[in-house]
Amino acid sequence: MSRVGAWFIGARGSVATTATVGALAMQARLVGRTGMVTDHPDLAEAGLVDLDDVVVGGHDIACTPLPKRAEMLADAGVVPTSVVAALRDELAEVDARIRPGLQPGEEAPDIDRLVQDLRDFRDRYRLERVVVVNVSSTEPPAQEHAAHADVRDLEAALAAGEPVLPASSLYSVAALRAGCAFVDFTPSTGLRLPALRQLADRLGLPWAGSDGKTGETLVKSVLAPMFAARNLRVRSWSGTNLLGGGDGATLADPAAAQSKSISKGGGLPALLGYDVDSPLHIDYVPDLGDWKTAWDHVSFEGFLGTRMNLQFTWQGCDSALAAPLVIDLVRLLALALARGSSGSQPQLGFFFKDPVDTSEHALHEQWRALVAWVRDVEVTGS
Amino acid sequence: MSRVGAWFIGARGSVATTATVGALAMQARLVGRTGMVTDHPDLAEAGLVDLDDVVVGGHDIACTPLPKRAEMLADAGVVPTSVVAALRDELAEVDARIRPGLQPGEEAPDIDRLVQDLRDFRDRYRLERVVVVNVSSTEPPAQEHAAHADVRDLEAALAAGEPVLPASSLYSVAALRAGCAFVDFTPSTGLRLPALRQLADRLGLPWAGSDGKTGETLVKSVLAPMFAARNLRVRSWSGTNLLGGGDGATLADPAAAQSKSISKGGGLPALLGYDVDSPLHIDYVPDLGDWKTAWDHVSFEGFLGTRMNLQFTWQGCDSALAAPLVIDLVRLLALALARGSSGSQPQLGFFFKDPVDTSEHALHEQWRALVAWVRDVEVTGS
Amino acid sequence: MSRVGAWFIGARGSVATTATVGALAMQARLVGRTGMVTDHPDLAEAGLVDLDDVVVGGHDIACTPLPKRAEMLADAGVVPTSVVAALRDELAEVDARIRPGLQPGEEAPDIDRLVQDLRDFRDRYRLERVVVVNVSSTEPPAQEHAAHADVRDLEAALAAGEPVLPASSLYSVAALRAGCAFVDFTPSTGLRLPALRQLADRLGLPWAGSDGKTGETLVKSVLAPMFAARNLRVRSWSGTNLLGGGDGATLADPAAAQSKSISKGGGLPALLGYDVDSPLHIDYVPDLGDWKTAWDHVSFEGFLGTRMNLQFTWQGCDSALAAPLVIDLVRLLALALARGSSGSQPQLGFFFKDPVDTSEHALHEQWRALVAWVRDVEVTGS
Amino acid sequence: MSRVGAWFIGARGSVATTATVGALAMQARLVGRTGMVTDHPDLAEAGLVDLDDVVVGGHDIACTPLPKRAEMLADAGVVPTSVVAALRDELAEVDARIRPGLQPGEEAPDIDRLVQDLRDFRDRYRLERVVVVNVSSTEPPAQEHAAHADVRDLEAALAAGEPVLPASSLYSVAALRAGCAFVDFTPSTGLRLPALRQLADRLGLPWAGSDGKTGETLVKSVLAPMFAARNLRVRSWSGTNLLGGGDGATLADPAAAQSKSISKGGGLPALLGYDVDSPLHIDYVPDLGDWKTAWDHVSFEGFLGTRMNLQFTWQGCDSALAAPLVIDLVRLLALALARGSSGSQPQLGFFFKDPVDTSEHALHEQWRALVAWVRDVEVTGS
Repeated sequence: MSRVGAWFIGARGSVATTATVGALAMQARLVGRTGMVTDHPDLAEAGLVDLDDVVVGGHDIACTPLPKRAEMLADAGVVPTSVVAALRDELAEVDARIRPGLQPGEEAPDIDRLVQDLRDFRDRYRLERVVVVNVSSTEPPAQEHAAHADVRDLEAALAAGEPVLPASSLYSVAALRAGCAFVDFTPSTGLRLPALRQLADRLGLPWAGSDGKTGETLVKSVLAPMFAARNLRVRSWSGTNLLGGGDGATLADPAAAQSKSISKGGGLPALLGYDVDSPLHIDYVPDLGDWKTAWDHVSFEGFLGTRMNLQFTWQGCDSALAAPLVIDLVRLLALALARGSSGSQPQLGFFFKDPVDTSEHALHEQWRALVAWVRDVEVTGS
Repeated sequence: MSRVGAWFIGARGSVATTATVGALAMQARLVGRTGMVTDHPDLAEAGLVDLDDVVVGGHDIACTPLPKRAEMLADAGVVPTSVVAALRDELAEVDARIRPGLQPGEEAPDIDRLVQDLRDFRDRYRLERVVVVNVSSTEPPAQEHAAHADVRDLEAALAAGEPVLPASSLYSVAALRAGCAFVDFTPSTGLRLPALRQLADRLGLPWAGSDGKTGETLVKSVLAPMFAARNLRVRSWSGTNLLGGGDGATLADPAAAQSKSISKGGGLPALLGYDVDSPLHIDYVPDLGDWKTAWDHVSFEGFLGTRMNLQFTWQGCDSALAAPLVIDLVRLLALALARGSSGSQPQLGFFFKDPVDTSEHALHEQWRALVAWVRDVEVTGS
Repeated sequence: MSRVGAWFIGARGSVATTATVGALAMQARLVGRTGMVTDHPDLAEAGLVDLDDVVVGGHDIACTPLPKRAEMLADAGVVPTSVVAALRDELAEVDARIRPGLQPGEEAPDIDRLVQDLRDFRDRYRLERVVVVNVSSTEPPAQEHAAHADVRDLEAALAAGEPVLPASSLYSVAALRAGCAFVDFTPSTGLRLPALRQLADRLGLPWAGSDGKTGETLVKSVLAPMFAARNLRVRSWSGTNLLGGGDGATLADPAAAQSKSISKGGGLPALLGYDVDSPLHIDYVPDLGDWKTAWDHVSFEGFLGTRMNLQFTWQGCDSALAAPLVIDLVRLLALALARGSSGSQPQLGFFFKDPVDTSEHALHEQWRALVAWVRDVEVTGS
Repeated sequence: MSRVGAWFIGARGSVATTATVGALAMQARLVGRTGMVTDHPDLAEAGLVDLDDVVVGGHDIACTPLPKRAEMLADAGVVPTSVVAALRDELAEVDARIRPGLQPGEEAPDIDRLVQDLRDFRDRYRLERVVVVNVSSTEPPAQEHAAHADVRDLEAALAAGEPVLPASSLYSVAALRAGCAFVDFTPSTGLRLPALRQLADRLGLPWAGSDGKTGETLVKSVLAPMFAARNLRVRSWSGTNLLGGGDGATLADPAAAQSKSISKGGGLPALLGYDVDSPLHIDYVPDLGDWKTAWDHVSFEGFLGTRMNLQFTWQGCDSALAAPLVIDLVRLLALALARGSSGSQPQLGFFFKDPVDTSEHALHEQWRALVAWVRDVEVTGS
């Protein structure tokens, strides 16, 4: 398989910077592959693109150079100081590939520029395929608009310069127009509008999403099936998330938090088979930086109505958890592109809090679907 | 399907009493079926014996009558007071079926008496099948003996009155000789000796075990596969179990605790695929009664070596968690008997900390195996 | 010392019912005195009114009789079933002393009726002193009104039938006019208005408040001084409270929750000596009933900037924690009345989340102040 | 006040290295004074020796130079990398002052050498006073010996070269003979033998101990008084400590763990006023390094027997918690020397798990005693 481009929307953010440091560090054999799902023995032999053949670029409106951002993450303990020091030149090279993103307010007119950025990237680095991954800050839920229902209406509105799409969706349009696959790693709107789905179908391009499943929701997606299999009735499932960092600051905005809470809350009824009281909080605690602490309290009922409970505390580094999944998704979407898969890719639900076009949230079922898809292809010799 | 006998070794203990109260309460339609795995939609239609057709009896050396034991459990909040009050007569009926167990020291000579008790039970209540479940106190690991290796040597030793087997194994011999299935719900030796396996094979009887998976180990069996699927490296997994009640008192004896710790600790390397530092404590805290509190601390490493951790606290009522599984196992072993299955039943590993003849500890894989086995039967129309 | 009346506003609520059951049970020698602060050896000999000489009455708008409310609490595990059964007659006697409270909307005109209820209670039971304790549902913060600043303006407004005071304050006016001491055990307005303070001073009556310190805030009031004494810098202190029951339902109303959050949040800067990020949530989880689960996460910095953290989970029964303190406060305010103390009683801050007229929130300093005050009196022979 | 020497037994261990880095960093104004108790406003003005006037030296049998040890601690996140880099020369200077410690087996004959080391240190750096602090690895409980009861017998045995004392006690003898104060920061025997107490008294020298109160026990010492003041009855208090690092490795030896458990467990009955079931574990989990995670579960009973519980998890860096206390104790013992105080110093119990010559374990009472003692001196103008 030939070279693949990984194009990050929000390329200087914490997740993208960590993913970039990680990709470069793995290419330089400075670190192992812990946290890379596609390195799991069940997937590793499946003909995915070699990590050495992945080239990173991206869009961002932030200007702090990548080497500096990587140092900041090293100071915060997210990535090792020594690795960042060893990769200073490589990080500067990636930084030079980062193109200006969409300024807030500046919208429809710029899709062509974004498309051109992607084509230039592909041409300059002779990339056979490019996967665009949105890892920028979470947006508020999008305003509804009549043009969202149909791709022709939408294209007309865009051509007329109307502010009809949020930024995440504009990037997805650009990705499709440039012939790239698209991944929504955030709960922003992205490609999840009927008109954009039609566009992807028309262009025969694959996409996946949304909202990376990295912490509390990941744990939920194994614990809830446990209660279900044992026929123990969950009576309430309360959750608190404390996080600082850029993501925390964004989510301190109630509008953006709403996107996140919708995304996080969705799976529980599907996992349990019934509705359950499940208050969920996200608190911005700047002091915690990239480390997220989640506490969940599950009250459940067993035989003869006996009341019991389970609590867990998760103390994880969000960027370190998300970054390898982002690289995994680049490899997996590149495989989908190689196979000519088109439209949403529900078999990648393993990676997402709010998986597109599937109601399956149980991690082990998602894992089975993922492995079957990856291997199937290999077996049938695509 | 006709009537099935559930014969409990330790019939006046907390688990058996709770199971008995529960079985009677479900028969009387006083309570629902929360906690009964065999009531799960994926299993309920599979032709298992109707709960109304289960008759309870057992052996015990304790003398406190079952109605009194049930009241004690009600006072401790394990079973509802109103349910116990409503079932006073039915509990007294079951109590009348409980036969004296083996006194410590009194051993080989009594197998015949035990066998006769089982035959009388079957005859009197016109039971088509009987399942014997060991829910008595955990024994220390058995002393090795040459006769354990071969059934002929063993039978000769037993015939000679030699004290060659621990009580749990003597009960299993009696069960087999009486044509019953046997379940080891504790970590005691029970049927897990080569000579006894040979006996079960020779007599064509099914058995399952061992050590019911009810709390901390249950949670482990979904969390560890999560770490594995995400390629996150567990660095240490430390556990503390606080429990009072009869089980706690037994486990305060270091010898018995050793049986339990061996049983609890076994699954982690199988689940993760590598060895990991996993100190594990069981503390007897009389104050806690039947409620068990377990705290686990999992330290793990993610992308680029970043260190994170997960803690959980489980506050469960051991008897209320174990009791429905005991009834489930009676129904499932009755099915195995009906089908003429012989020998160990590894497809029932879902229920056990230390599943016999399988290295699979992941709950979801165990669930798949269980469902496949139960349904297979149904499909093929046994 | 002669007989003392305990008059509860909200006399059929969970806290008052638990306090009433407890008082009667202690008088009947059915239970011990665990949880009673005034039974502590440092206070017990201080000449407080004998518990046998306390007579309970109250106001409420709820109609469920006290024996029924007590049964409901017994079913919920808050009070022992056997104790409630043994006290059925005594509870009915207390229930007969409960007078109708203020209906929402019905306000100023009824103060006279409330005053008369209190006088009748005192006369009928020959009580030397009466202490009124507000344990009714939390109100939203009161609307400001010009008449709150001066007792003459307030009395004119009340005389004119203006709706100038919230219910909790109307009860406090009635208490003062009837010559009773008053305790605010909730975060409602109660006596905490300048005009009402003036009234208490003019009438020479003691009062205390507010908002009983029973759970998370209690723990905070010993942990925060620990960090301060060790010169460890708290960087954030995040708290989540899950509670069901009547109090939870009330606090599900954001306006009432605001009263509570203000009351809970106040102490931390005083305890630490600096401001700290301290997000605090109260979630209504009906499933939990009277049991409150609080989780706090404290991030702190030690020597050379090293970051560490402390988490705690508190699982307590709110009514069982509050009830003995309510009885303690009756005894302590009766002592204040006996001594002729007038105005706010800051030396009782030990009992409150938001102690009146003191900035001391550290539990041990509050304890010292309490013991000194109680003993001082005894020593000087009042 | 003139210059003071801080002489660490175990000078290249984690605690001493962290303390040394910290002292040098504070002298160089590279860091603030978080974690230094003697920097608390209530103590800071009390005439303690200026930190700039403290000179560090010590004994150790380990050979890894201090700058290297400091780098290792920086890699483990215990001290900041930048601080260690800036202090390379200063650390090398301190390293040059570290003298060889007692080799295991080599015992009584070497006291003179140790004494000479201390005298040389004092002379070379013109130190007015020297405080010796034992921060070396925990020893097993000492073997009893008849000579421990009387100083004359002991000195005769030492003169005869008998192996009558453990190493920690030999260091304390050397300290006293050299005219230094002595601090037991570990649970080892140190000065806590009648004969050694007599020696300290005879020589008129002050000493303090033992076993620094840095984590779980610190939290206990504020929570237990909370339960006591509220008359809530603790029914069980279970604790688990996970720790790696050198201290963890030492405590993996059951004999040494026994010293620690005795030291940790002592306070609870004193704090509560009654005995309580309190199982306590220390587990060596190498993966955790210097970070200690403790989980405590407290089951308690409130009004009318209602059962509740409190759990806490403490995640702290042991060396970072201990190091500032070690420096505090140097300053405080120097003050005791300056005042001519002789014998044990129970007013320093604030710092210790097992405070000498006092049964007071409540942190706030210990704090009051400390402040009173420090200020008293100031007031009386020493």
